[in-house]
Order: sequence, then C-alpha cells, then structure tokens
Amino acid sequence: MDRTQQRFQIQRGALPSGKPVDLQEVAVLLQAGDDVAIARLPLAKGLHVRLPNGRLLIVGQRVLAGHKLALREIAQGQPVLRYGSIIGFATQTIEAGSHVHTHNLAVGTLHQQYVYGSELHLVQPVSIQEQRTFQGYRRPDGRAGTRNYLALIGTVNCAASAIRAIQKRFGAEILRRYPQIDGIIGLTHKNGCAMGSQGIATLQRVLAGMAAHPNVGAYLLVGLGCESNQIPNLISEMRLDVGERWKEPLSLNLQEHQGIAQTVEEGVRLIGELLPRVNDVRREAIPISELTLALQCGGSDGWSGVTANPALGYCVDELIRQGGTAVLSETPEIYGAEHVLLRRARSQEVGEKLLERLRWWEQYAAINGMEMDNNPSPGNKLGGLTTIYEKSLGAIAKGGSMPLNAVYQYAEQITERGLVVMDTPGYDPVSATGQVAGGANIMAFTTGRGSCFGFKPAPSIKIATNTPMYESMNNDMDLNAGVMLDGEGMSAEEAGRQILEEVIAVASGKKSKSEAQDIGEEEFAPWILGAIM
Amino acid sequence: MDRTQQRFQIQRGALPSGKPVDLQEVAVLLQAGDDVAIARLPLAKGLHVRLPNGRLLIVGQRVLAGHKLALREIAQGQPVLRYGSIIGFATQTIEAGSHVHTHNLAVGTLHQQYVYGSELHLVQPVSIQEQRTFQGYRRPDGRAGTRNYLALIGTVNCAASAIRAIQKRFGAEILRRYPQIDGIIGLTHKNGCAMGSQGIATLQRVLAGMAAHPNVGAYLLVGLGCESNQIPNLISEMRLDVGERWKEPLSLNLQEHQGIAQTVEEGVRLIGELLPRVNDVRREAIPISELTLALQCGGSDGWSGVTANPALGYCVDELIRQGGTAVLSETPEIYGAEHVLLRRARSQEVGEKLLERLRWWEQYAAINGMEMDNNPSPGNKLGGLTTIYEKSLGAIAKGGSMPLNAVYQYAEQITERGLVVMDTPGYDPVSATGQVAGGANIMAFTTGRGSCFGFKPAPSIKIATNTPMYESMNNDMDLNAGVMLDGEGMSAEEAGRQILEEVIAVASGKKSKSEAQDIGEEEFAPWILGAIM
Ligand SMILES: [Ca+2]
Ligand SMILES: [Ca+2]
Ligand SMILES: [Ca+2]
Ligand SMILES: [Ca+2]
Ligand SMILES: [Ca+2]
Repeated sequence: MDRTQQRFQIQRGALPSGKPVDLQEVAVLLQAGDDVAIARLPLAKGLHVRLPNGRLLIVGQRVLAGHKLALREIAQGQPVLRYGSIIGFATQTIEAGSHVHTHNLAVGTLHQQYVYGSELHLVQPVSIQEQRTFQGYRRPDGRAGTRNYLALIGTVNCAASAIRAIQKRFGAEILRRYPQIDGIIGLTHKNGCAMGSQGIATLQRVLAGMAAHPNVGAYLLVGLGCESNQIPNLISEMRLDVGERWKEPLSLNLQEHQGIAQTVEEGVRLIGELLPRVNDVRREAIPISELTLALQCGGSDGWSGVTANPALGYCVDELIRQGGTAVLSETPEIYGAEHVLLRRARSQEVGEKLLERLRWWEQYAAINGMEMDNNPSPGNKLGGLTTIYEKSLGAIAKGGSMPLNAVYQYAEQITERGLVVMDTPGYDPVSATGQVAGGANIMAFTTGRGSCFGFKPAPSIKIATNTPMYESMNNDMDLNAGVMLDGEGMSAEEAGRQILEEVIAVASGKKSKSEAQDIGEEEFAPWILGAIM
Repeated sequence: MDRTQQRFQIQRGALPSGKPVDLQEVAVLLQAGDDVAIARLPLAKGLHVRLPNGRLLIVGQRVLAGHKLALREIAQGQPVLRYGSIIGFATQTIEAGSHVHTHNLAVGTLHQQYVYGSELHLVQPVSIQEQRTFQGYRRPDGRAGTRNYLALIGTVNCAASAIRAIQKRFGAEILRRYPQIDGIIGLTHKNGCAMGSQGIATLQRVLAGMAAHPNVGAYLLVGLGCESNQIPNLISEMRLDVGERWKEPLSLNLQEHQGIAQTVEEGVRLIGELLPRVNDVRREAIPISELTLALQCGGSDGWSGVTANPALGYCVDELIRQGGTAVLSETPEIYGAEHVLLRRARSQEVGEKLLERLRWWEQYAAINGMEMDNNPSPGNKLGGLTTIYEKSLGAIAKGGSMPLNAVYQYAEQITERGLVVMDTPGYDPVSATGQVAGGANIMAFTTGRGSCFGFKPAPSIKIATNTPMYESMNNDMDLNAGVMLDGEGMSAEEAGRQILEEVIAVASGKKSKSEAQDIGEEEFAPWILGAIM
C-alpha cells in the first residue's frame, strides 16, 4: 500500500484494525507532556493510532486537519496542555481519542491568574565541548557581526534622495574591490520632522541602533539641516560620540553643502575613504552565544502554530543553552496569553515591565479607535484553534520555553542574554526594524501564506509552515517546516535543529534567499508614534 | 553714492534729509491698502521714506529687518492690516513712521469672530484674448497631464522590493525609445497591513489617486497577497474599474506568482507591453484652467511671509482668474487664523467643513499628547512677527486672496476650481502626497532654509525666500523671490508673475530643478492614521 492510498484510507477510517499508524504519521505532538496532538490530515472515527509510549488509541470522532486529538482521558475541570502550556480547561470529561474543541474546552479564569516566575525552566548550559561557533566579525567593542555593511542613514525624508544618489555612484564594479563589504545600504524613511518628542525619541533610538549595529562597519548620517531630528542632537542624545564607540559619527547636511549635487559629491568622497577601512576585517570563529536572533512571523496560516513556530522554539531553546539571545516581539500577538510569559519571567520586575507594555498597548489602540482583540476568529476556529491562549501560544511558540530575562521598549539596545521580549507591533517591517536596531544580528521569519521579507543589515531566514507554499515560493523560502506534516513526519525538535544549522550557516556568510535577491532596504520602517504635524 | 554705501547710510540714518528713499527700496508693501510695510533692512530713526502715493514718512524709531513700519497713523483700538487682512488691533495710537510690534499691537478678540463669506473678493475672469495655455497631455477623461509617467504602485511594504527590482530592469537605454514617457516611478511605502479602517481608507485614497492621476499614463498595482490592503478591495472601493476610467487596473501579487523572481518577470512583461501604449501621446495646447497647483512651504524662515509666499499668492490669484485651481494645505499652519479663510468661504457649508477639520486636528493632537500651538515663538518675535494671525497669514499668503471654494479631506479627489483647501499635515512629503493624490498636476514650493524637495509624478517648482540661500543652493532652487529684498526691490505682484510664467513653462515640459536631478520618488509618503498593530 503506497502512502497516498494509506492517507486516503486514514481519512476514511478504512485501515484494517490491528494495523495501527504511528502518531507522528498522522499528527504533530508539540511537547512530550501535551494532552493533545494536532491532526496533520483528517482522521476518521475508528482509526487506530500508536502513541510514542506504545499505547494504542482509537479515534472517537472525525478530527479535521489542524484540529486537536485527545491523547488521554481528561477529567472535567482539568487543564489541557498544548505547547506544554495550559490552553484551557475541560468543560466535560474528555475521553482519550476525542476531538477537543469548543464543545469540551474553554478558557476558564486563567487570564486573571498573573503569577511571576512559577514556571522557570532551568537553563542547562552546554558543555565546552558542545559549544558551537560561527564565522563572524569581531568588533572592537566585543560585539559580533554576521555581515559587514556601510550605512547611509537619513535623519529625515528630505535627505532620502541624496542618499539614493550617493548609493548609485557605487556600482558592482567598485564594490567588487572590497570583498569583505556586503554592500552600502541606504536607510531612508518617511519622517524626521513635524513630530512630537515621543516620535523623535523613538526614531532616534532606531537610527542610532542602526549606526551602532555590529553588522555596520561604518556609517554616514545625512540630513537636510532644518529638520526637528537634528544630527548634533541625535549624536549627543544617543551618545554616538562617546569614547567606547568604535565608529566615528560622520555626518552631512544638504543646507550646509549647497544642496543635492555637492552633498552627493561630499558623500561619495567620504564613503570612498571609508571603503578600504571597512573592508579591512576578516571573519573568525566566534561562539554562537554572540548571536542575537530576531523572531518574526508574517503572513501566518493555520499551520504556523503547528510546524514552523514550535520548530523555531526548539532552535531558540538550543541557542539559549549555548548562551545566545532570542528576541520575541509582536506584542499584539502576545496579548491575551501574557500569563504564560509571566510564569517564565525571571523576576517580578521583568513581569511587570511586560504588563506595563500591554497596558500601554490597550491605551494606544483605544485612542486610535482600535481593539486589542486576539480571540480566535470564526476562520481560526474552523482551522482548529479553540481559545485565545492557544492562538497566542502559537505565536509565542517561536520563543521556545526558556525563562524570560528582560523586556525592552521598541528599538532599545538589547543587553541581556537568553530569551527577551522587545515591544513592537506585529507588522513585519516595523517589528523587524525595532529588533535589528536593538542589536539583533540575524533573523528567523516563519510564514504560512508566503512573505518575501528581507532586511539589511541583518539576514533573514524564512521558514515555510507548509510544503505547498514552500514549493511554490522556493526562491524565497530558506527552510520548510512543512516537512513536519509530510510523509512520515518530522518532530518539531528535529525541524528546530535544522533551523539552528541554517542560522549558523547564514550567520557565517551563507546568503539567505532574500540576500541572494538583494532584498532588504525598502523594509526599513521605523515605528512612527504620535501625530504628524 | 553706490548702493552699498546708501544701504549703510540708511541703517545709520545718515542720508541727507531732503533726499528720501522710495519705500520699495527699504521695505516690502504686501498689499496696496496695508497699514504696515516690512523693513528689508534695518531702518534708522529719522530716515525719510517716500510712499507710493508720493507722501513723505519719517521713521520714528529704529525698525529692524523683517519688522513692521507704520505707513499711517492708526488710532487706538483700530485694526492693523497686513496682507490686506487684520493681524491685530492697535493697543495705543500708532504714529505714522512708528515701529509696530508687541508694544502697540495685540490680537484682541478677533479669534472669536467666525464670519462666513464676509470678505468674498469677486473673481474677475480673464477675457478670451487673455486666456493662457500650456503644452500638456489631454487625457481621455478630459483631465490634463503635465507629465506622462508609468507607475508601479505598492499596496503594502512587502511588495516594495519587487517594485524596485522591476524598475531596475528598465534602464535609460530602454526608456530612450519612448520619448513621450517621463519615467517609470515606483510608489512604495512603509504600510498597507496591520492598520485600522481609518488607516486603510486613507491609504486607499492616496494609492487610487496616484493610479488615476492625469500625469500617470498607466499603472500596475503590486501586492503581497495576504495584506489588509487587498488589491481587489482597493479597486472596487476606489472604483478603479468603472466604465469612465481610461486606465486598466492591472495588478500582480507575489503569493500568486511564486515570489519575487516570477513576479518581477511578470511585471517586466506587463510594463513592456504598456510602454508603447503609454508613449503614444502628444503634448497639445491646453488652457491653464486645467492646472491644479499644489501650494507648499517647507523649511520656512522669517522672509517666507514677506517674499515667496505673498508672491506665490499673486500667482495663485492670476491662475484662478484664468479658471485654474490652487490647493492650500498644511492645516497646522492655518490653525489660529482660520477666521481669515472663513471670511473668504464661498458658503457656510465650506466654512463649517474647515472648522470641522480644525476641531479634528485639536483632537488628533490631544490624543497624541501634542498641541496645536501656532503662536509666534520668541524667535519669531525677534524676527518681527507679532501675532498668531500674522504668522498664519504668512503661511496662508501663498493661497492669494480669492474665495475659498471647497475643503477636502486628505487625498480626496479635487473637483472644484478656484482656491480650495485640502487638510494635510504641514510636513512636506506627507502634505504633497495628499495634494498630488487629490489631482494636483504641478506644485509651487516656497522655502527659506532651503529644501531640495521633488515629487513624482507632479513637478515641483522651488521658490527661495532670500537671495543668499538661492545663491548657495542654486542647483535646487527654481526661482528667487529674494529679489523682493534686493537692490531696488521687486513687488510681490511682479515676483508672482514670474512664478506663473515658470509654472506654465514647467507644466509644458521644462524640467524643474528637482526633475533635472531625478528627485521625487522617496518623497512619496502617505499620511498614516491610527495605530500600527
Ligand atoms: Ca505575526
Ligand atoms: Ca510579524
Ligand atoms: Ca520584500
Ligand atoms: Ca510649512
Ligand atoms: Ca510643508
């Protein structure tokens, strides 16, 4: 019997009894202790399933793909675990082999239970023998770069055209002479003037974070001259000129250099001088504890929380055991399941900072006439999601299971190791801009519908949640977590190991799919807060 | 005695009495009936000045450059006119020849007096013989283009990199074959997803306005596929596919075309097909009544309200007599002197719409913790500005003196002729984007500090307020209104006639300074309203 025939028979429930299928062939078990597994394909009533512990389970009702199958009996009122976390409570006794959904599972009063640090998994650091390295650029301040760019940074939109004109003067034939330089990026944007103090402060954090980024070997600030976001103020507020900085805060402004033409000439001269200096670096072995991995998802689908996100979570757990850092963001997608992160908060202070950010979001949404409503939509429910916790846990899953060590504001400099949260919108370019400005030197981006996201100066590794999309968009997808749903399946842990290997390879210089297509400048999108006047 | 010597002696008050100087040589009289003129240079006590009516005036106290000189006696409590409008009331009797400032002028209760249409100047249309034309593109719907671009329009940031890649495939050698095409513009931006309904609606108006713009011969919408700002919805909401449209709403999305590489190929194919069709147009004589002139100022200085803005106002008055349209915007800069525009409102409905917008701004600023405070700053006062009316009138001056015929929301389609207001922020790129999306096919941009602004697809004519900046940035400045301050001076009316001639020349195909330097894509900046989620 070939696989297609077997698949068809599983759906019809027509497999001969006594010939059970292994759980992994028909469902995804996200963590060993979970009460439920997620059906990979429609499971018919009567199907015999062999669990990892060898026990046999008979499917009690038809369970559609993406929906939950109970692996054991759960008494009424007992918690139901998925991702190793509580997604709700049984509203009636749930038999082993049952379909678990809105008819027998509800959230209860979980949301009122804010407990700090009650579920702190101990991080077991790897031994010295197990310590992994990547080939990176060691910077004078000790930080590590995965790339080596030269950056033109605009303080205001009015300088953007000059930046593009400077870039155009350095074609491929010139850059070929500087093999250690990945390119000259133009970080242009739409703002920088007619903003309030909150808007300017946020933008300054972003611009300074890019200037100071370990993937940036040198930078040139370009302004107009009369903008609110003044260059001297940016340099002094963000301390770009203090002693411990290893890059000179070079700058230019249009009004002092008689407009576009001469500013471009002066910029070309300055960049020309910088090129040989920026080129004068070599990759060397650096422990992966120096990687700061930005976690993103964009264009999610029903499989995001089943395949790519949990797989990425395993990668993150291993990176953290190696002493590295992962940055979980997209606050509106965390919203509603903050209790899970609070239980993993290293301290009450860290937990309170997360709650403070969530309260800020409620206010931000309210004054703009919007809602922080993350409940499963009717479409989500059709796809198998039952509760708000389950939905947000699907997003949080990419953050793994380690303690939450710190909470940062948007584009704030990340100084703690381990798992940290940076408060950002869910919107990909704005979220990624904050994470990279904060110091993330590589990014893992899960996508179900298929995003073509790239981001300079930090390479982005895109992980498909399903095989059909991976195959359709294979020029843009780096990895396929859809393999967890195919054939004999792959565990989230194994898929996670593959992601970590790709992270190390790309950090060492392998081009990501978006880099191979030279994507990643347009995506620079600072979060603009406050009114535009 | 040469001019430098004379200038020096005017400042010292050392000119021999009986040898008076003409007013225009030492001050700017903005409208014939004004009570004050603005000193071009410091005027010493005792200087004899001959007024346009032949009468003699003796300067009573030193009047600094940019400050106001009383041309006649003004009794206590009487209104003081500048720009033909009330800027405040005399707080004591003001002698002819006096310095007028905070010590003898205050706002009184003018701000409480909202009167609709009390100062409607009659528009005296020009005769048929006086009707001016420009060489433009007559479109099938009757609208007139001043340029002929092909536009790639992104629905979301996620499509921006694909747009840039498509553009790169059409180099100068290909475009040379299509001499009637001004270029292929990429209208990319930072948003299009994770926005609320107000944000999406505003963005849709901008994108549809660009698609329908008479300076755009054809367009291609490019999206990702899963964004909130869906292409089919944009087309149907904005009626881009209804019968009277002469352009086909072509579109592409990355997820349907297997990612970047194939989307770019498909885009290149579509644009390749469009090029010969878009090229198949010829310029012809069209009355300038078909011009819609966007009014902008950016990087203002103390001379903006003395030279470039009033001169532009004369150009606008003449354009309107010719049946054309001018779009005054930058609502935060109107704020505080709305009574002036209300007195020129064609109807109570138009006036109330303006007030409704101002109330909206108060709310928008307040919820974002900002203030609509347009009072003269200490620096403004040092420069000679006394009251909030005077300051806002300096901004409004570029709108001339004609009746206010309509008030539009940001990026709304402009359908009325004459002077209209479009509600926009003051911030140049965001304001200009709304005006052009609304249908403006040419722009006049006054600047004191020196802006290098350009905007595709509508050419922008930059007018310097002062000669030193004009000379420093002469590669970027199209015109110099600073001549009103130099030598024997030039009246605002004469400077305005020069602006109108330049508007007609540039509308007819003469390249503006920003076009000659290929500036104007980065400046596309839709106003983003609401929270980014
Ligand atoms: Ca997401
Ligand atoms: Ca995202
Ligand atoms: Ca992209
Ligand atoms: Ca302005
Ligand atoms: Ca402006």
